[in-house]
Amino acid sequence: MPDMPLPDMPLLLTLDLIGTFVFALSGGTLAVRKGLDVFGIATLSLAAALAGGLVRDALLGATPPASFQDPRYLWTALAAAAAVFFFHRGIERMDKPVMVLDALGLGLFAVAGCRKALAFGLDPLPAVLLGVLTAIGGGVVRDLLVTETPRVLREDVYALAALLGAGAAALGHMLALPAVPVGIGAAALAAIVRIVSVRRGWQAPRAPGR
Amino acid sequence: MPDMPLPDMPLLLTLDLIGTFVFALSGGTLAVRKGLDVFGIATLSLAAALAGGLVRDALLGATPPASFQDPRYLWTALAAAAAVFFFHRGIERMDKPVMVLDALGLGLFAVAGCRKALAFGLDPLPAVLLGVLTAIGGGVVRDLLVTETPRVLREDVYALAALLGAGAAALGHMLALPAVPVGIGAAALAAIVRIVSVRRGWQAPRAPGR
Amino acid sequence: MPDMPLPDMPLLLTLDLIGTFVFALSGGTLAVRKGLDVFGIATLSLAAALAGGLVRDALLGATPPASFQDPRYLWTALAAAAAVFFFHRGIERMDKPVMVLDALGLGLFAVAGCRKALAFGLDPLPAVLLGVLTAIGGGVVRDLLVTETPRVLREDVYALAALLGAGAAALGHMLALPAVPVGIGAAALAAIVRIVSVRRGWQAPRAPGR
Repeated sequence: MPDMPLPDMPLLLTLDLIGTFVFALSGGTLAVRKGLDVFGIATLSLAAALAGGLVRDALLGATPPASFQDPRYLWTALAAAAAVFFFHRGIERMDKPVMVLDALGLGLFAVAGCRKALAFGLDPLPAVLLGVLTAIGGGVVRDLLVTETPRVLREDVYALAALLGAGAAALGHMLALPAVPVGIGAAALAAIVRIVSVRRGWQAPRAPGR
Repeated sequence: MPDMPLPDMPLLLTLDLIGTFVFALSGGTLAVRKGLDVFGIATLSLAAALAGGLVRDALLGATPPASFQDPRYLWTALAAAAAVFFFHRGIERMDKPVMVLDALGLGLFAVAGCRKALAFGLDPLPAVLLGVLTAIGGGVVRDLLVTETPRVLREDVYALAALLGAGAAALGHMLALPAVPVGIGAAALAAIVRIVSVRRGWQAPRAPGR
Repeated sequence: MPDMPLPDMPLLLTLDLIGTFVFALSGGTLAVRKGLDVFGIATLSLAAALAGGLVRDALLGATPPASFQDPRYLWTALAAAAAVFFFHRGIERMDKPVMVLDALGLGLFAVAGCRKALAFGLDPLPAVLLGVLTAIGGGVVRDLLVTETPRVLREDVYALAALLGAGAAALGHMLALPAVPVGIGAAALAAIVRIVSVRRGWQAPRAPGR
């Protein structure tokens, strides 16, 4: 592999685990809203936190997947499920910080997915696509499991934010810029675009003539 | 691989094929209830019987998957689809034996998935998770294809039963106990918990404060 | 690999890209009908065009998948998404030519999927199954993303057409017939069965006694 994937570095592993935790929170709180039991909470937490990375690793042939090799991913997701089980009312009241952390998770997963794809020799365009898939995949599986239209199709500037983050990471890689600051900057870009778009109610264009 | 996966042994291959047959029945009867044609019946039978193992093998990098290498899995699932096509009324009347066999299939798939993951070098926690995914994956895909909430999220002690079976198999592996009796015992544990929970109407706890 | 997979040959690569384009059109027009934004259009276009091949390659262990290694697949799908965004009213008025091209895509993907599976050493039965999965997988993911029952379960002679195409390709392979004419003939067979079935309103049999 031409360079080290982001999660090998302590700062970025920490951020990756934060993303895992927050995505798992999103799965668990959805399960509580749907009236599911403790196993439903755990299932949706794990699905939201891990499915994007599992699909990424299966497509890259990076098997067994990272989240099955480093136990911290599973424990982090299960800890989030437990937090939801006991404190879901408090967590739902914190919808603004959770949205911010979710946006950060989106950016981090998009960057990590893109960089891992580049490390496996993919060209920038498919690497960016795989970064977006990593970032949105968990949410897609989470929502499909409760037969809801995935958030990425309902919310306007969600895939776009992931796309910008992964694109910036790919650009930095092509320009041979240092990985850590580019990765942090790209993830922050995605998170900021997502957060501002929610606060301002930005909408992406629809096809003309409908 | 540190030890032989269960399906290599004749008794356990037989049990694995019974699980395949029963899971395929569950897919086929759902297709009939939804008014689908003969190809819909075959599609849901194959999906219910094979999807869990396909996902497991793609994530482990055990490709091509077992059910594509040993033709008995496909023929077994297709035989179940044919049985549903011609005898679905009789099969639906046998809902109690089908539930018992489905519980047995759940236990067998959980144990086989967990042990295959351990044989590929995964730690116990992800191996248990992959065992549960093997056991519930087919049913999840089956239900999503007809846009129903997956049974694992609707029924209380379903994921738990798979978890207990996979967990017991992992524990036996860690204690270096002999594989065949542990595997049979772990699958039986899962099946019994599932069957008793259906008969007694057990419910898993929901998050407090809803 | 015992023989060259179809997409390596210029004629058949062209046909494969036509299939990709038409499947992407089907995803994009569904997105427009659902009122999705430009990213929803791109998401459904990419999913419909690529998901079947991605699943095939993940199950075969042919990673990274073909559509991530040859950038023409992604650009073709994105070009279709752009065409839908700007010209969706014209495209929807051309529903008959689009149906014909979709039938051609179905046949081409079924044949290409089956032949790639044979090239990876699978037996004919699982190779045919993987061909069908390649052909219908994109449409399944496309429809699930907007929580609709997949077309393959709603329309009668859709899986059957893919099955005939993949089966003919496998038969030609077993008889060691020349690959290119067999592949074209098998894809044409699938397309013709599909087109005629739509025009004549053919129905596959349902289970007796409902």
